[in-house]
Amino acid sequence: MKLRLLVAYDGTSFRGFQSQKHGRTVQDTLEKVIAVIVGERVILHASGRTDAGVHALGQTVHFDLTPEQVTRIGRMGKSDRWVAALNSSLPPQLRVLKASQAPKDFHARFSTRGKIYRYDIWHDSVLPPHLVNRSWHLFGSLDRSVIRDLARCVEGTHDFRGFCADSGSLPESTVRTIRRVIMKERGSSISITLEGDGFLYRMVRMIVGGMVRVAQEKEDPDVFLKRLAKGQPWPTPAMAPAHGLYLVKALYPPRKTRTA
Amino acid sequence: MKLRLLVAYDGTSFRGFQSQKHGRTVQDTLEKVIAVIVGERVILHASGRTDAGVHALGQTVHFDLTPEQVTRIGRMGKSDRWVAALNSSLPPQLRVLKASQAPKDFHARFSTRGKIYRYDIWHDSVLPPHLVNRSWHLFGSLDRSVIRDLARCVEGTHDFRGFCADSGSLPESTVRTIRRVIMKERGSSISITLEGDGFLYRMVRMIVGGMVRVAQEKEDPDVFLKRLAKGQPWPTPAMAPAHGLYLVKALYPPRKTRTA
Repeated sequence: MKLRLLVAYDGTSFRGFQSQKHGRTVQDTLEKVIAVIVGERVILHASGRTDAGVHALGQTVHFDLTPEQVTRIGRMGKSDRWVAALNSSLPPQLRVLKASQAPKDFHARFSTRGKIYRYDIWHDSVLPPHLVNRSWHLFGSLDRSVIRDLARCVEGTHDFRGFCADSGSLPESTVRTIRRVIMKERGSSISITLEGDGFLYRMVRMIVGGMVRVAQEKEDPDVFLKRLAKGQPWPTPAMAPAHGLYLVKALYPPRKTRTA
Repeated sequence: MKLRLLVAYDGTSFRGFQSQKHGRTVQDTLEKVIAVIVGERVILHASGRTDAGVHALGQTVHFDLTPEQVTRIGRMGKSDRWVAALNSSLPPQLRVLKASQAPKDFHARFSTRGKIYRYDIWHDSVLPPHLVNRSWHLFGSLDRSVIRDLARCVEGTHDFRGFCADSGSLPESTVRTIRRVIMKERGSSISITLEGDGFLYRMVRMIVGGMVRVAQEKEDPDVFLKRLAKGQPWPTPAMAPAHGLYLVKALYPPRKTRTA
């Protein structure tokens, strides 16, 4: 049996998503609580990793249960029981929002058709206490129209190699399609939402960091646009901090899941 | 010279506003940082105390400086320098939003003409991680129309003795006027904003706690309304938790302050 979970977390409380030998990560925390129910460790697969400090409003994960495990857990096999059972043991900074049985061929990572990320900026001399660790605090000169213009340029299919942090090895292709970028402004708050078919390592943070650098007149817009056009790596990358980034949701083909 | 500050804080990080022998309170934290600038401890006066866990979006405080202190700090006497100077030493969970010179007869507590509080509720089976310590999590049956109706009844002038926690001694009069109650609902989020000429100890939390108890059908609306009409103390008070409460602002007569 394959179970699919929609989870949310406050990135401040975890050392990123992926399991680590030492450190409280989202994966370790979830796997431990699932293990208590199942009786042994299961391997969790996510739509993708998130770095330490990055938040998730809707991360999708899945795990498989053997027929023996399903028999052992009995009534717990009902997917609607998982939400309450897991949440009662998880720290409040990590919540399971939904649980459902998924078809055999579903894979949280390989079945994705895209992702939506949001990046939050607070542009004012003072950062309100409630936005600490939740918004990138920018003060001083910032030409917001530059961000708006560059956001338009980022839309479409590009070689994003120039907006990709080194994670040891580059993927086969660094071409990705950003379906749309929506920038919302409300007073000091700026939020930039990007929907794409996929994102390279730290791509959103490098796009936002690069746009902000131009908006602060620390770099010419041409430099940003050339990186986008030529897919050249950035010699001095400008990366926005992790704590302004939210994984809003991972996108999948229309569901054919059933509630077991 | 009298300085007036508008401050905001995340109540989770502090043991309430008021100075304590042991414990990190808002007052102690602010007084220590001011003392570094002034060279000696000054006494801070606030519009009112807030309990541990209660947040402030706009708390007003003031303190007085002797002519010697003003001379000593020199350029720092300019009120516009205080915001940056204090924030550079304060923890990010406590921010000074504004600083201005106030007239001699201004007093953060005694000059108030009222206050605005907001109480946030999240009504759903799961509390999103980002609302931990920031919203009262309610699940299960809750008749929201009851809250709406009782909110209307709370408006006006009443003897709120039945909605006042024992703080050792009652004030001379327990009659207060709630000028208006605004309830906003958006999906699972319910926020109740109360503006009044003054509030008794824990009055907002007892009003909200009482309304919720009726909305959960744990108590008859008549019990709530009788307390309101007769000003009788509540034998088994229902108090909403501190972490859903926000001091939005303290109200004062129109300013005649000048930026020094």
